Amino acid sequence: MKIDGTPYRSVWVNEQDGWSVRIIDQTKLPWTVEILRLTTVAEAAHAIRSMQVRGAPLIGAVAAYGLALALRVDTSAEALERDAAMLNSTRPTAVNLRWALDRMLARLRPLAAQERVAAAYAEAGRIADEDAAQCEAIGTHGAPLIAEIAARKPGKRVNILTHCNAGWLATVDWGTALAPIYKAFEQKIDLHVWVDETRPRNQGAFLTAFELGKHGVPHTVIADNAGGHLMQHGEVDIVIVGTDRVTRTGDVANKIGTYLKALAAFDNNVPFWVGLPSSTIDWTVSDGVREIPIEERAGTEVTMVTGRALDGNVATVRVVPSGSPAANPAFDVTPARLVTGLITERGNCAASEAGLLSLFPERQAA
Amino acid sequence: MKIDGTPYRSVWVNEQDGWSVRIIDQTKLPWTVEILRLTTVAEAAHAIRSMQVRGAPLIGAVAAYGLALALRVDTSAEALERDAAMLNSTRPTAVNLRWALDRMLARLRPLAAQERVAAAYAEAGRIADEDAAQCEAIGTHGAPLIAEIAARKPGKRVNILTHCNAGWLATVDWGTALAPIYKAFEQKIDLHVWVDETRPRNQGAFLTAFELGKHGVPHTVIADNAGGHLMQHGEVDIVIVGTDRVTRTGDVANKIGTYLKALAAFDNNVPFWVGLPSSTIDWTVSDGVREIPIEERAGTEVTMVTGRALDGNVATVRVVPSGSPAANPAFDVTPARLVTGLITERGNCAASEAGLLSLFPERQAA
Repeated sequence: MKIDGTPYRSVWVNEQDGWSVRIIDQTKLPWTVEILRLTTVAEAAHAIRSMQVRGAPLIGAVAAYGLALALRVDTSAEALERDAAMLNSTRPTAVNLRWALDRMLARLRPLAAQERVAAAYAEAGRIADEDAAQCEAIGTHGAPLIAEIAARKPGKRVNILTHCNAGWLATVDWGTALAPIYKAFEQKIDLHVWVDETRPRNQGAFLTAFELGKHGVPHTVIADNAGGHLMQHGEVDIVIVGTDRVTRTGDVANKIGTYLKALAAFDNNVPFWVGLPSSTIDWTVSDGVREIPIEERAGTEVTMVTGRALDGNVATVRVVPSGSPAANPAFDVTPARLVTGLITERGNCAASEAGLLSLFPERQAA
Repeated sequence: MKIDGTPYRSVWVNEQDGWSVRIIDQTKLPWTVEILRLTTVAEAAHAIRSMQVRGAPLIGAVAAYGLALALRVDTSAEALERDAAMLNSTRPTAVNLRWALDRMLARLRPLAAQERVAAAYAEAGRIADEDAAQCEAIGTHGAPLIAEIAARKPGKRVNILTHCNAGWLATVDWGTALAPIYKAFEQKIDLHVWVDETRPRNQGAFLTAFELGKHGVPHTVIADNAGGHLMQHGEVDIVIVGTDRVTRTGDVANKIGTYLKALAAFDNNVPFWVGLPSSTIDWTVSDGVREIPIEERAGTEVTMVTGRALDGNVATVRVVPSGSPAANPAFDVTPARLVTGLITERGNCAASEAGLLSLFPERQAA
């Protein structure tokens, strides 16, 4: 996607030297677009650990490129295993991190040492390209949902509500929830996005608003509290969100507050769709509310807010009295009964076991 | 209610001189408890206009005392009308402001000039006392709802969720939504309050957390997004909120985001109650969602956050990219079908026309 007219991915090989790895420092967004140049595996590990890159697909791609950087220094089998293990330890819960590193190891272990550097760059490139293609496919399948609404209200804007950030910054390109929006925007459909601020970490206000703004997509930031009122008054035509995990029965774990928007959408007959790559489906889980453990994060994410001060510097302020504790469950689960459908790289389906199996018949026996 | 063990009201006559008026500067909360001394009608008007005092009942009481301060300087009929009109213009939409001033005028106009000062203080005192008594009655009627839950789960804490600030700071004492909580706390019921942060103006985090903390009531601040998840997992036993306007059919207008919590409560069989003085009931409106106009406030309330910086000073930071617009509907309407019941100074009733008329039979013909 674009930043001020220039196409970007969230990770790429530096065109100038052909080997160093470029990323956007996401900890500086939305205030500064700072492109970092990673030259060592330690720098790649730091980028992941410090959340300069975040989002499961992007973390996987950066780890893969990190292994390529490691091999430039030492191509031995011992170094390969050691560096992969080090990269894998940077974010212990990110499934894509292990998946990408396992794929790299499977490709690189059998090779002669002198073949490994070139093969590592090629494989990391394929991981990145495949992620971008998969997200673009989600966009291709999701855009008609927006186009259909546009066709039903000629001359009027389609209003889409999204929560948190499931955009190109969380993937290599396109995003998941935002891919259908970018595709529809490319197709010149008149659309506008309501961006939930997404407290407490403000990923909507910080990342989604940044992405959409820089790409030129019309959007408005709202408090998380506002969506229900907007739906009551016909101001939302469709909700599209991403997900961290979907059960085989179609329950959707996503950023805290998603469930409240799904309830409001259901109450107002607003379609509620979820964009996801199939790697997000957890075929082992049936009851999302009961079985998916929800991460409880630090209360300081609620009590402290970081933004840009009037002097231009980034500053942190406390927004809760110091004697008051805060709780911070990071995700919630939206039951499948509230979800209109799922948008995957293979197409769209109902949020149910039958729906998912219709797209992924190879999981029938699982 | 208490601040660190000392009983307070939100407005009172200075015990030291017997005539000046004391308020807590609410614009400084929760960071500093600053007691102001109002000595002129101009200072009273400024306190209302600058939101040093807020909340409809409190505004009415401060305006009444403001008129008493005015009369100390000039007891003439002309001055009375002029000063009342000036006070009435400080917050044009506050219904209680006009109501309190009209009541003062009705009492003072017939009197001889030399009788007006004493009568004004007496009438302002009655307005304040009656508001406190009305709120305490809401507490008396609401506390048994909490006690019943406590009786059903012996040895366990009752968890109450509230949104925004409908506490003693918004009234003269006790509050509306918080009155049942203070009463139950006084009755030694083991309870804990989930305090919705209440973006974008953070009245929950700033005022409700301050009130509860200073009175010693156990509480935890949460992002507005968290309530649905907590209800799904049995962590909320009852929701109690205040309201700005209730229709004769029981629809409830309240701070933006209330509707989302009502949906989640309904979906999880959590009782959802609303505390209100009967002056909040608008007997002329039947369909809250269609008929109640919702104030659209400045987008800067969403894009800018004020808190206490690390150096101890109060500072404002921007939390939305400067190119991104923000929308800010300030209230929403919760349909009566989602409301378990209403708690008024006359008792509790169903959120319906029949329910309200059972408590207010004199409105039958209206």
